Amino acid sequence: VAPETLRRAGRTGATSGLDVDAELARYRDLVVATLLADLPPATVGGLYGLVPSYPSRPSKGLRPALCLATCVALGGEESVALNSAVAIELFHNAFLIHDDIQDESELRRGSSTLVAEHGVEVALNVGNATNLLGLQRLMANRPILGSALSWEIMQETERMLGKSLEGQARELEWIRDNACDLAADDYYRMCLLKTSWYTCIYPCRVGALIAGRPTADTELIDRFGWYLGAAFQITDDVLNLSVDSPRYGKEVDGDLWEGKRTLMLIDFLQLTRGRERQRVHRFLAQRRQDRTPGDVAWLHERLVETGCVQRARADAAQLAEASYDAGLAAFADAPQSAARDFLLALPGYMIGRDR
Amino acid sequence: VAPETLRRAGRTGATSGLDVDAELARYRDLVVATLLADLPPATVGGLYGLVPSYPSRPSKGLRPALCLATCVALGGEESVALNSAVAIELFHNAFLIHDDIQDESELRRGSSTLVAEHGVEVALNVGNATNLLGLQRLMANRPILGSALSWEIMQETERMLGKSLEGQARELEWIRDNACDLAADDYYRMCLLKTSWYTCIYPCRVGALIAGRPTADTELIDRFGWYLGAAFQITDDVLNLSVDSPRYGKEVDGDLWEGKRTLMLIDFLQLTRGRERQRVHRFLAQRRQDRTPGDVAWLHERLVETGCVQRARADAAQLAEASYDAGLAAFADAPQSAARDFLLALPGYMIGRDR
Repeated sequence: VAPETLRRAGRTGATSGLDVDAELARYRDLVVATLLADLPPATVGGLYGLVPSYPSRPSKGLRPALCLATCVALGGEESVALNSAVAIELFHNAFLIHDDIQDESELRRGSSTLVAEHGVEVALNVGNATNLLGLQRLMANRPILGSALSWEIMQETERMLGKSLEGQARELEWIRDNACDLAADDYYRMCLLKTSWYTCIYPCRVGALIAGRPTADTELIDRFGWYLGAAFQITDDVLNLSVDSPRYGKEVDGDLWEGKRTLMLIDFLQLTRGRERQRVHRFLAQRRQDRTPGDVAWLHERLVETGCVQRARADAAQLAEASYDAGLAAFADAPQSAARDFLLALPGYMIGRDR
Repeated sequence: VAPETLRRAGRTGATSGLDVDAELARYRDLVVATLLADLPPATVGGLYGLVPSYPSRPSKGLRPALCLATCVALGGEESVALNSAVAIELFHNAFLIHDDIQDESELRRGSSTLVAEHGVEVALNVGNATNLLGLQRLMANRPILGSALSWEIMQETERMLGKSLEGQARELEWIRDNACDLAADDYYRMCLLKTSWYTCIYPCRVGALIAGRPTADTELIDRFGWYLGAAFQITDDVLNLSVDSPRYGKEVDGDLWEGKRTLMLIDFLQLTRGRERQRVHRFLAQRRQDRTPGDVAWLHERLVETGCVQRARADAAQLAEASYDAGLAAFADAPQSAARDFLLALPGYMIGRDR
């Protein structure tokens, strides 16, 4: 399919007239309401009292939606997968809390980060409490799904946590060692670990397991999620440079301040020469607090002028296409359903979004 | 028993002539060697490459020793509990890494903390990787212990993590809200959650489960661990004020710099009056970085002069006695063994230690 068709499919739900935004919001509201309804009483001020903060903020809820929709598209019941979808959303929120501590971020989902408002001590505790609530949800799967399936989902989770940590470590290492000679392939390998597995492959696999698909059948679903996650991450990195909307909820140019090795920055590092090359190397060698707004604005401008941003957008569109094709094959046996339409509309939606 | 007998028992292994230090070292070496032998290859510089750092440093290894000794004393096999003991040590190391981030500590087990050496980003990742390795160990229990017992140990772990987080949150809250009117009971409740469950009750319960003791039987073991943990924590707090030994491995007076609500500080806050009371309240209201060495030295001196340190030592001795009595009852059916002697020697050892 052509990118334009895909983008239109993302807006309109392929040919089915499905409203992707509305469907995403429905999944999200269901999962967040269940998550918030079952939290332990906030007896301890610093701990469970702050757990609802991130989940209550505006968000896409992509991960639990992928889990629920995959389960339903493959013939499973939404209500049976709900507990696992809540666990996935809890792990994601814990990850965001820890990530904000690591990146010293100021803004998350449109409000102050926990670390900016309450400091590292409290934020780290709230992150750990949120992770624990995720683990408790997985343990609560046993009476719902039986012991064998609950254990398999625990294993999927352990696998996902390992891949995310490894991907994140790789990214940290690049910044720490000031890696300036990376290739697009390095980025994609990191992205498979850090984003695709965590954001797409893991939720889809869990949904497929609950629907009764044996693990061996998930290869096509893995490919669907792998490309979808990469399209998602590249679009995220592009949005970080271009968005001026309150819906976005993060700091604009935050990636540049952090020296994050995005596909665009890797592209720019490969093509730049002479004094410009020296300037970007010098910029990246600095500590975050020593970087200047002038340098950040300059780098932002150069990424646009040299076509790095445009090429990244084109790559994201190609990945979305590949994800759509893999999704068609993965869900070829599945009867037409809103869940299936939703999944197939996501690749186009991903690259068309503004938040 | 009298405190002096108990202390002697701690040195000599009750009447059995057991060398507690040597036995503790044997358990520790076994667990650390197993832990280090099975780590994933250090392919990623920032992540698994730093996981061995804390486990390799000199430590007591109390927690895995409690697990192994309880299992053996109750008729179980050490080799069958080893995997769980390694998991317990991994969770403990992850906790220490996170704790050092939260407290901005400089020194751990005699060397620089991970956060001081590598920053919050890397340290947080290494802590999470260590937690994940603990989880993977628990999942590896399945072929060793079967699915029902593996699940029970997972539940014990979830319970322990919840209690630790709650205890730690309570302690954080006291510092944040500058709580100055706490009672000894508040301290003991926090200590049950933060120290006793985590350090003693959880490892003993896991050991008992593996030995085949049903959960209902663990009430006496819980009491043994509850008092042992409190004696351990109070001794730890006293050591923080008094130790000038390289074996100690933490910053002397670190608790005072942090404003930590130890039993001694709570005691002092209750008895102090007038200008001295104002001075300590003012000191505690300050941020850590605004506190002065002069004030810390003054508070240290006053805790000694007013008998707070001595009373805490006496309380720890009473708790050790209560732990010994509960241990005698808990292991009354168990035949004489080195493991049983070791467990019964621990209360005395705990209050006699210098690190």
